[in-house]
Amino acid sequence: MGHHRDDVLAHAVELLDTHGLGALTMRRLGTELGVQPSAIYHHFANKQTLLAAVADEILASRPAATASSWPDRVRETCAGLRTAMLDCTDGADVVATVWAFGLGAHGPADELVAVLVEAGADDELAAVASRTLLHYVFGHAFEEQTARQAIAAGAVDRTLDSLPDFDLGLELVIDGLRSRLSA
Amino acid sequence: MGHHRDDVLAHAVELLDTHGLGALTMRRLGTELGVQPSAIYHHFANKQTLLAAVADEILASRPAATASSWPDRVRETCAGLRTAMLDCTDGADVVATVWAFGLGAHGPADELVAVLVEAGADDELAAVASRTLLHYVFGHAFEEQTARQAIAAGAVDRTLDSLPDFDLGLELVIDGLRSRLSA
Repeated sequence: MGHHRDDVLAHAVELLDTHGLGALTMRRLGTELGVQPSAIYHHFANKQTLLAAVADEILASRPAATASSWPDRVRETCAGLRTAMLDCTDGADVVATVWAFGLGAHGPADELVAVLVEAGADDELAAVASRTLLHYVFGHAFEEQTARQAIAAGAVDRTLDSLPDFDLGLELVIDGLRSRLSA
Repeated sequence: MGHHRDDVLAHAVELLDTHGLGALTMRRLGTELGVQPSAIYHHFANKQTLLAAVADEILASRPAATASSWPDRVRETCAGLRTAMLDCTDGADVVATVWAFGLGAHGPADELVAVLVEAGADDELAAVASRTLLHYVFGHAFEEQTARQAIAAGAVDRTLDSLPDFDLGLELVIDGLRSRLSA
C-alpha cells in the first residue's frame, strides 16, 4: 500500500508527540504504516530529512506576527516559537537539532532578521541578535519541556517554581538590543 | 570485582565522550566494567543520578572566575561553562538535561547569581538574568556541538560560518543587564 508524503509526515509527527523522539525511527514508521522502510526512504532520504520536515510541521502551527512595533514583533515571534515547541513532545529538542543541522526550522530566525533590519539593525547586528534570541528561546524551552516531561514520567521531583519567567528573560535581551538600535 | 564510585564515574564520562549519550546506559557501563548492572546501581540509584554526577564532572574542569568587574566575571563564567560542555561529546545535551532535571550542574548558575547580587541586582533580577545567561549559553553550545558532531559524522554538510560569534551574543545580554543595574 502506498502512502503520500503528507501522510507519512503526519504519522511521524503523531509518533513523536505520542512516544517521544527516541521512538521516531524510519523502521518504526514503516512498521506502523504497514510498509517496508524503503517506502519511507522514498519520501525522506534519511532520518535528518525526516526530522527537518517534522520540525517545519511543528513550526507551521505558529500564528503570524502582526504587531507594528519591533519589540512587540520580537515578543510575538519568540512566544510563537516557544509555544509551538512546547505543544509537541520533545518539540524543543527536535526544532533545535534541525536548526543545528542547518536543514530547516528557519522560519523564526528569518522573521527575526526581517523585523530587526526594518528596525534599523545592520546586517551583523540582525544576524547576531536573531540568533541570540533563538538560542535563548531554545534554552528556556528545552529546560521547561525536559522538566515537565521528566516530572510527568515520575523521573524527577523538581517543581517548576524555579523556572524563571520566559517573558522577563526575553525583556533582558530586548533591552540589550534596544541599547544597540538607539546607539 | 568491586569498583569505587569514582572509577565508575570516570568510566561513564569516558563512555560518553567516546560514544555519545546514546551509548551511556547502566547496562553497558556494567558490561564494560565486567560487573552486573546491580553493582552500578549500588553507586547510582538510577540513570538520572548517574547523568547528574557526569554533568558535575564535566563542569569540574572549569577554571575559577577571577576577574574583578561583574561583566568580566559573567564573561568568564559563561565562557568556562561553554568550553567545558564543548570539550565532551554531547556535553551540552547532558549538562542542559541535568540542569532541567534539577539534579545538578548548579555551579555556573550559583556563580552568576553571586556575581550579579554583588553587582547590585535584587534577588529577582539576579535569578532571571542568571537563567537567561544560562539558557543563552546552553542554546548556543547545543547548536555548535550538534552541528560539529553531525558534520564530523558526515550526516549534514552545513558549515559553521553561519554560527554567530558566541561573545557578540553574550554582549547583547550583558548590555540588557547593564541597563537594569544602572537604572
